[in-house]
Amino acid sequence: MKITFIQTGGTIDKDYPKITGGWAFEIDKPAVERILEKLDPSFSFEILSAFKKDSLMIEDGDRIQLLKMIEELENQKIIVTHGTDTMIETANYLSTIANKTIILTGAMKPERFYNSDASINLGVAVGAINVLSPGVYVAMHGVVKKHNEIKRDLESGKYF
Amino acid sequence: MKITFIQTGGTIDKDYPKITGGWAFEIDKPAVERILEKLDPSFSFEILSAFKKDSLMIEDGDRIQLLKMIEELENQKIIVTHGTDTMIETANYLSTIANKTIILTGAMKPERFYNSDASINLGVAVGAINVLSPGVYVAMHGVVKKHNEIKRDLESGKYF
Amino acid sequence: MKITFIQTGGTIDKDYPKITGGWAFEIDKPAVERILEKLDPSFSFEILSAFKKDSLMIEDGDRIQLLKMIEELENQKIIVTHGTDTMIETANYLSTIANKTIILTGAMKPERFYNSDASINLGVAVGAINVLSPGVYVAMHGVVKKHNEIKRDLESGKYF
Amino acid sequence: MKITFIQTGGTIDKDYPKITGGWAFEIDKPAVERILEKLDPSFSFEILSAFKKDSLMIEDGDRIQLLKMIEELENQKIIVTHGTDTMIETANYLSTIANKTIILTGAMKPERFYNSDASINLGVAVGAINVLSPGVYVAMHGVVKKHNEIKRDLESGKYF
Repeated sequence: MKITFIQTGGTIDKDYPKITGGWAFEIDKPAVERILEKLDPSFSFEILSAFKKDSLMIEDGDRIQLLKMIEELENQKIIVTHGTDTMIETANYLSTIANKTIILTGAMKPERFYNSDASINLGVAVGAINVLSPGVYVAMHGVVKKHNEIKRDLESGKYF
Repeated sequence: MKITFIQTGGTIDKDYPKITGGWAFEIDKPAVERILEKLDPSFSFEILSAFKKDSLMIEDGDRIQLLKMIEELENQKIIVTHGTDTMIETANYLSTIANKTIILTGAMKPERFYNSDASINLGVAVGAINVLSPGVYVAMHGVVKKHNEIKRDLESGKYF
Repeated sequence: MKITFIQTGGTIDKDYPKITGGWAFEIDKPAVERILEKLDPSFSFEILSAFKKDSLMIEDGDRIQLLKMIEELENQKIIVTHGTDTMIETANYLSTIANKTIILTGAMKPERFYNSDASINLGVAVGAINVLSPGVYVAMHGVVKKHNEIKRDLESGKYF
Repeated sequence: MKITFIQTGGTIDKDYPKITGGWAFEIDKPAVERILEKLDPSFSFEILSAFKKDSLMIEDGDRIQLLKMIEELENQKIIVTHGTDTMIETANYLSTIANKTIILTGAMKPERFYNSDASINLGVAVGAINVLSPGVYVAMHGVVKKHNEIKRDLESGKYF
């Protein structure tokens, strides 16, 4: 089994800025690198970066770029890390892709936080991609559902 | 979806002893509690404890007890946290159980360690149990396989 | 020995916002609470909050409030957690206070980060306050110096 | 300021064994390395290893070796990381050394644990060594006292 991980930014990758005087986060290296180092996986993998954006900033052009990037991949198992605010929009956008299993996941707290959900969420996506047939899915809060079946409680932010 | 988590002990649950003068670990509360607190899951769950043993210490009587515990459960989705040294033996032992999806997982480093694989391993089991049909499986090092298909490299300790 | 810890905000206390759609941090409970829980200290202590501000936002009125708060304390050993960008300004401002040992400290990364310097910085301040005579000091990057002797490299952000 | 850190083993350095089938901890690289990486100190330092033992295993020969190692150092500020069970015995043993400031510290939980006191304890020792005049001290649970003034509650394990 080989998994292709694609970074698009979002909370999971938010880190503290190196410059002084800053207030907001910055997005740097994919958190996936640090999580897979802990896992020491038996599957082979590659980590690609599509873009590094808060998901509210993602535009149509970004989604076209991501779609093309995935279509051109030979590998069929793809996990996309993504900001939580427009994860379903991007999942729907990718749903035209055939013959690939694509799972979008992310985190409510940055992977850099010791109380983050990032490691377990990525684990959920990895566990599901071992088994799932082609399609586009979202994995958040421990549930894995098709892009057109997952829902979000906008008040709590929880997917179900 | 409801998941029943069952503690049997093993590395994942090893904690530092409270008493002075100690050298070995002790096994206390299930690490699953602390991991699910970070996940904030959308599925319902219960956490049970069968026993608290290093997996080299598990005897036939323990496995009988675990088997009966699972058979008596109404719920059909069960994740068993287990020591890594005899995980496959226990999985094989449980393979007579029909109509339930049972996944065994654990960790190479205790969940208390900041560089532990526990959170991601449990995530892998949770992701797989969303999808898998009944049977007994092992989820370690990012792969999920049937109890009679998973193998272990005895030198590195890695499952594949 | 009794230590009074006073929160003023800053990087050390920055946490991830609970609301959806956010990009910036928010400042909530004092990180000192979580650090002291790990330390399990033999000294007695109290934790007060003066205000919760990024240190670039601290105004004269805030510093007057902090000064009065410290002057009215009976206790003579005070550790102030503070943002790193105006720590020296506040230390200089407090230098009129007599007969109290006051140490300002903070962090380059939020305490919530697993790679944070918060715990060790607070430790440095606690270790120094065991020993120091009255005066106003800054404890950062492992050095403890009088308010008018500490300096900061503005490029790297390091105190020395 | 230059600080010489000397590893002797103990809980602070306990790590999980790499081999399969193990139950007890092993002592490997000094935890000080990982803690100082987070601190990014402004002082210069060196990290030496005297031996790697649980402190109940330390014998007279080990203490002689440590004593000689410290006496031969040019540097005058020394922090010794040590197991908690015989920390006071070793501190008393070193008290014949003149003209050096020596602080012994350690941890109740291994530095590898996310809820460890290791980082803050080392910080306490670093903060105190900025200020203290020559002598032998113990820094644990947030208090720093001379080797012949520190006491331990044998039931809770707490120093005071």
